[in-house]
Amino acid sequence: MPGKQKISPLYTDLYQLTMAQAYFMSQKSDMPASFDYFFRKAPFKGGYLVFAGLQDLLELIIELKFEKEDIDFLFKSGFHSDFLEYLKSFSFSGDIYSVEEGDVVFPFEPILRVDGNLCETQLIETLLLNVLNYQSLVATKAARIRYVSEGKVLSDFGLRRAQSYGAIMASRAAVIGGFNNTSNVFAARKYNIPYAGTMAHSFIECFDSEIEAFRAYANIFPESSVLLADTYNTLGQGVPNAIIVAKELEAKGYKLKGIRLDSGDLAYLSKKAREMLDKANLNYVSIIVSNQLDENVIRSLKEQDAPIDGFGVGTNLVTGNPDGAVDGVYKLAEVNGKPKLKISENIQKTTLPGKKQITRFYNGEKQFYCDAITLTNEKTPTKMYHPFEKGKSVKLNGCYYELLTRPVMKNGKITIEKQEVKKINEYLKNRLNMLPPEHKRFDFPHIYKVGVSKSLLQLREDIMLNLQNNKPKG
Amino acid sequence: MPGKQKISPLYTDLYQLTMAQAYFMSQKSDMPASFDYFFRKAPFKGGYLVFAGLQDLLELIIELKFEKEDIDFLFKSGFHSDFLEYLKSFSFSGDIYSVEEGDVVFPFEPILRVDGNLCETQLIETLLLNVLNYQSLVATKAARIRYVSEGKVLSDFGLRRAQSYGAIMASRAAVIGGFNNTSNVFAARKYNIPYAGTMAHSFIECFDSEIEAFRAYANIFPESSVLLADTYNTLGQGVPNAIIVAKELEAKGYKLKGIRLDSGDLAYLSKKAREMLDKANLNYVSIIVSNQLDENVIRSLKEQDAPIDGFGVGTNLVTGNPDGAVDGVYKLAEVNGKPKLKISENIQKTTLPGKKQITRFYNGEKQFYCDAITLTNEKTPTKMYHPFEKGKSVKLNGCYYELLTRPVMKNGKITIEKQEVKKINEYLKNRLNMLPPEHKRFDFPHIYKVGVSKSLLQLREDIMLNLQNNKPKG
Repeated sequence: MPGKQKISPLYTDLYQLTMAQAYFMSQKSDMPASFDYFFRKAPFKGGYLVFAGLQDLLELIIELKFEKEDIDFLFKSGFHSDFLEYLKSFSFSGDIYSVEEGDVVFPFEPILRVDGNLCETQLIETLLLNVLNYQSLVATKAARIRYVSEGKVLSDFGLRRAQSYGAIMASRAAVIGGFNNTSNVFAARKYNIPYAGTMAHSFIECFDSEIEAFRAYANIFPESSVLLADTYNTLGQGVPNAIIVAKELEAKGYKLKGIRLDSGDLAYLSKKAREMLDKANLNYVSIIVSNQLDENVIRSLKEQDAPIDGFGVGTNLVTGNPDGAVDGVYKLAEVNGKPKLKISENIQKTTLPGKKQITRFYNGEKQFYCDAITLTNEKTPTKMYHPFEKGKSVKLNGCYYELLTRPVMKNGKITIEKQEVKKINEYLKNRLNMLPPEHKRFDFPHIYKVGVSKSLLQLREDIMLNLQNNKPKG
Repeated sequence: MPGKQKISPLYTDLYQLTMAQAYFMSQKSDMPASFDYFFRKAPFKGGYLVFAGLQDLLELIIELKFEKEDIDFLFKSGFHSDFLEYLKSFSFSGDIYSVEEGDVVFPFEPILRVDGNLCETQLIETLLLNVLNYQSLVATKAARIRYVSEGKVLSDFGLRRAQSYGAIMASRAAVIGGFNNTSNVFAARKYNIPYAGTMAHSFIECFDSEIEAFRAYANIFPESSVLLADTYNTLGQGVPNAIIVAKELEAKGYKLKGIRLDSGDLAYLSKKAREMLDKANLNYVSIIVSNQLDENVIRSLKEQDAPIDGFGVGTNLVTGNPDGAVDGVYKLAEVNGKPKLKISENIQKTTLPGKKQITRFYNGEKQFYCDAITLTNEKTPTKMYHPFEKGKSVKLNGCYYELLTRPVMKNGKITIEKQEVKKINEYLKNRLNMLPPEHKRFDFPHIYKVGVSKSLLQLREDIMLNLQNNKPKG
């Protein structure tokens, strides 16, 4: 992979910089602080989130440096020269603990924790949310599409409809979630992921006839041609022409790779096209379809036994339609040794204080059973409590368990090995195999149990009580 | 603005490169070709699209160069060495005609036309769609939010929920659509747009008390502090503390800029907060709100007479929720002097052939009346026809008109002056003022008339007839 990943530290919300200056001027910039990354609602009304974006985030964080042009801009913006001197030598020197990239995670869990000084933990917030929220959104969407597509080939065709440069990370997240390849050549090179493509209607139209276009393309790419069959008339012309060209390729010792259908009723057309191809002894020629696909359309095509070998998915994948965003947040958990929480009239929006970690418990069938959020200085709990409903608890004795939160950065240095994107997908596949099916279904998935330890519950109550006692009259 | 805008030409769909190679190997790469950019459905069930992204696109096109690492990657991917030699000296040398950035445009209109050789017109397709589709989406969303917000301050707070690097162009498009500023400092520098920010809950929590946090911030930013009032208890603590600090600032000759409400019922809280501030003679202190806002929430707040001075809008703005994408496409209109169209069973999806342009006609009140799509070699029409429904026509005699499609690039060189983003918004404001209100309303907007000239209609019919006569039996 050529070059380092870099982005200007100005790729942040202005308030991160003004708050950092205020910390600096109040002699608070060196205070130790801990922040948690978590989300409140799984996207797509689903039961889980695929955690993605970690490797990119870590690479971007270690390269965060204020260059001269950044400092100059902040100077002109009125930032204080003492603070700018501090920024000149800024680099992130903290620790990051995280769930492994490609794991499935659930609402309210502290998926990732940042420990560092107050300035640095604040200055990476926006970048962290920008990268993790989006890649997790697309990886989750991709995993849902993979779920209904089973072993079929899935291609990311989203670049033209992506939210501009969001396309780059979209292709990576698509492969993490289970896509086989992308049409996005830039992302393919950057992330070393497979790339693929077919042809466009314009190509066909630039030749005097469809069959001439097919022939020209197949001559140049005899082993990888996927001929677009719907430019003029799919069954009346496109498929018959593809069959002629396939036979011509056979005569030269090659095999036509496939045809693509991009319009019309894909269930009907794929069945008829399959029949025609099979009748011509071309059962090896694949049928690829595209056109506003998502997990629901693909499920419907499967239910109709449409003989489709591959799906090209664009807009709905890369924009994470219909949600568009994961509601991930980054909240202060501890500062200067003091656990902190953000209270809210809604207890579900009150955050969990202190440095925490996640332990995952398995049931007898080696399936995920529940996750417990505990303070880092606790032993593995034997019982966990519902985070919001008093009195509800789950016994954990005898369960096999593993600690999900592990160090990924220490003193500003990455401590995990870089994984190939395909490897992250393999990890996800294993993890999804261990997630009971009731959490994977699309309609009203069963809520996965996430609880907290007694000490954490007690800590939250103590802090809330304390805040309420100190509250002035309303 | 520092540096040039660059992106690797590999930021494209693989098929653009394979098709280009096939054109090259078939001696077709130098054939003249024309492509149209248009969309079929206005986003958000609205009546128009704000056209945005042009300046970025032009700057990216003129810098498109295949560098050594691009060529090396394509070589390893199996591209032909003759074609790679050709790519080494590739640069876009064509012409582009376009509607002005910031104008309002309508379905089926050829907003932008690319004339060049077949290879170059094909190689820019994906980039063009990637940039124009997204910026137009966000600019249109921003214009809708501006429409209901009237003169209030609108801030783009979307960076943390944007689709990763999509955030950069999102902030630009937000300002084109009518936002006053962005929290995204990087975009602010890159595009010379205003930036703004407040403070986060974590800032408050890092001090022993809310009032200490307010004081620390206000001391450092005495003229620009917007104090976040909802960390503990908005009316019971946050607003009273803000009032104390405002009075302390007054004693030093400064004025508190504002308070921000980020949770709870914003209508109720803003009214109560306004009362409290006014009672303390702080009627100059602004109330800014945020929290999952969009044009519908803001309209509702206005209907309730909530005394709010500014809105911070994030997720729904930058992700273009709920649509996520404009369905813009790039279709072949002419090749080697021959007009082309893509037929479809659905006449609405059949494209318009030939080199075209748009003329906008005004009614007697100097409001937009209709747009006519004509061939470039026609005179301004006196009558236009419905593009799909036979027999429907509109007389245009005596109407004031202007040609919307104008040259913006000639022989690969930009021929228009670069506009400040704020200027593009001013242009949009003027244009929206000329768009009759029935096209701007949110619910079932009146469909703006877009017609075609008789010659164009005839040309389409001739080509379709010709294609049908040459069609093999189905």
